[in-house]
Amino acid sequence: MTAQTPLIQEELYEIESLMRAQASGQHPDLASALDLLLSAGGKRIRPTITVLIGRALGAPQQKLITLGAAIELLHTATLVHDDLIDGALLRRGTPTLNSKWSPAATVLTGDFLFACAAKLAADTGSLAAMSMFSRTLQTIVNGEISQLFTNRCLPNREEYFKRIYAKTASLFETCAATAAMVANCGDQMINPAAAFGYQVGVAFQIIDDILDFTEAPETLGKPTGSDLRQGIVTLPVIAFIENNPNHPLSQKLSAGECFDSQNEVESFINRIKTSDAIEKARDEARAHLVEGLKKLSYLPQTEEILYLTEIVGKMVDRKV
Amino acid sequence: MTAQTPLIQEELYEIESLMRAQASGQHPDLASALDLLLSAGGKRIRPTITVLIGRALGAPQQKLITLGAAIELLHTATLVHDDLIDGALLRRGTPTLNSKWSPAATVLTGDFLFACAAKLAADTGSLAAMSMFSRTLQTIVNGEISQLFTNRCLPNREEYFKRIYAKTASLFETCAATAAMVANCGDQMINPAAAFGYQVGVAFQIIDDILDFTEAPETLGKPTGSDLRQGIVTLPVIAFIENNPNHPLSQKLSAGECFDSQNEVESFINRIKTSDAIEKARDEARAHLVEGLKKLSYLPQTEEILYLTEIVGKMVDRKV
Repeated sequence: MTAQTPLIQEELYEIESLMRAQASGQHPDLASALDLLLSAGGKRIRPTITVLIGRALGAPQQKLITLGAAIELLHTATLVHDDLIDGALLRRGTPTLNSKWSPAATVLTGDFLFACAAKLAADTGSLAAMSMFSRTLQTIVNGEISQLFTNRCLPNREEYFKRIYAKTASLFETCAATAAMVANCGDQMINPAAAFGYQVGVAFQIIDDILDFTEAPETLGKPTGSDLRQGIVTLPVIAFIENNPNHPLSQKLSAGECFDSQNEVESFINRIKTSDAIEKARDEARAHLVEGLKKLSYLPQTEEILYLTEIVGKMVDRKV
Repeated sequence: MTAQTPLIQEELYEIESLMRAQASGQHPDLASALDLLLSAGGKRIRPTITVLIGRALGAPQQKLITLGAAIELLHTATLVHDDLIDGALLRRGTPTLNSKWSPAATVLTGDFLFACAAKLAADTGSLAAMSMFSRTLQTIVNGEISQLFTNRCLPNREEYFKRIYAKTASLFETCAATAAMVANCGDQMINPAAAFGYQVGVAFQIIDDILDFTEAPETLGKPTGSDLRQGIVTLPVIAFIENNPNHPLSQKLSAGECFDSQNEVESFINRIKTSDAIEKARDEARAHLVEGLKKLSYLPQTEEILYLTEIVGKMVDRKV
């Protein structure tokens, strides 16, 4: 996404530099771990939202750079611990830290990134932003703990939306709301910014969960349907069960049972990806996006907001 | 220590409650993990320092309670990840979280405690405190990473003092300095408070390292000399080598070699604990304490400061 955003290219470049600068003066192995993590890249969608909303609301450039780096480092820290917990060997096609390092070094690198994120959040000088930031970290971690102890294979809409709020939408909400906070705005701007971030985050995660079914393993860097293979029920599965309540596998999952064999899960994945559940889920993502875009109308209609509308509008059709 | 501090009994009670309250509304398994961790107790020396210094400087009681809980939770979070990394099964004679839980749940519980600590630090409303707090977390984690990659068995004074700064003195420094910050003091009070905390933290860790040699395994909850068994060289070892440079084991370690056998390390531990290296190390701890107490003279000489003087004065002779 970086290359496609000339409007905020300078800020994104500075955010990247500030993230890399965290390693300076630290242990050389830590520095090389950070380098590995940051080189893996990513879409930088969260800091993009922060910078665009913040600029539209007149926030000082330096604060947006600091905040953007804080948010992306917090996101990176949660991925590092996540990959360790899942034992994932690849992310975005690049080897994960835990695939190369000991669990001890991986835990500590994640901790260090949390510390950097907290330090940068404090550097914004906004207590409100700092406070929202740490609440979001609580939400994300509590969500991961819940997932660890949750019943596998049980389709439940309410649980799904709770989970994707914790996993994704809470940080999107924060990256938009804190941009308004460092611009010294009141609730009149903070609230619609937060609501925009929330809705976009929900849409973003639903699309991710759709791609997990529709894309090839080479694109995903993991097998198709990897969530369902782990017993995690996402919106495409819920939509399929709602559309086909009498399908034997729908009945099985609704009864709280998991799959008996690898073949069974494979056939269910194939059935879902060719069903209209995918489009149904995509419609839901689109509806959340539309809600989010409505909220943007409360913000000053600057070129940043128009650009943001364009970017998130493309989200529903993204392939990676 | 709680029972011995009637002067600040109310604050310590409230800090304990605030720490426990973090679990409310969270996943039940997380709540029970927090309960396990907090029931294990501990001396609560860090919040004691925070409250006494803060009260002497006129900080609002509620802010000191919030700050004290933040500091103790940060400390607890680092212990949770530490024990996981070391594979420790007991701490303070109580089973560690990782001895009962999966690594995944342990990592996440530590993360949740970091998030709570950050949230409470933000709740103090002091950006300066918040900022020092996150810098200290960086220092602690960077110290742990350095220890992970460091050469084993090599006696090095400078490295030792760097390590105990990261491990212990940095947080003591923070618990004293941030107390002055939430009291809205300037550098005139913040600096001596920080210096006091630093010196006391150094003394505290040296004494811990002495107890690792002098106390019985039942008191320690781990074998005597456990650091040296892992190749970690502490001040009693350094003092022994300085006093006995020609001892074969001194020469071995100075050459950067580790022990060849369990017998060799056992005999070295026994040799150190009956040598005058123990008293030499204790003298160094005492010298740091004296330096620390000198700094207290810059603070208002209230009953809190007199009491603090008394508590830390007893530190050199503590047994646990």
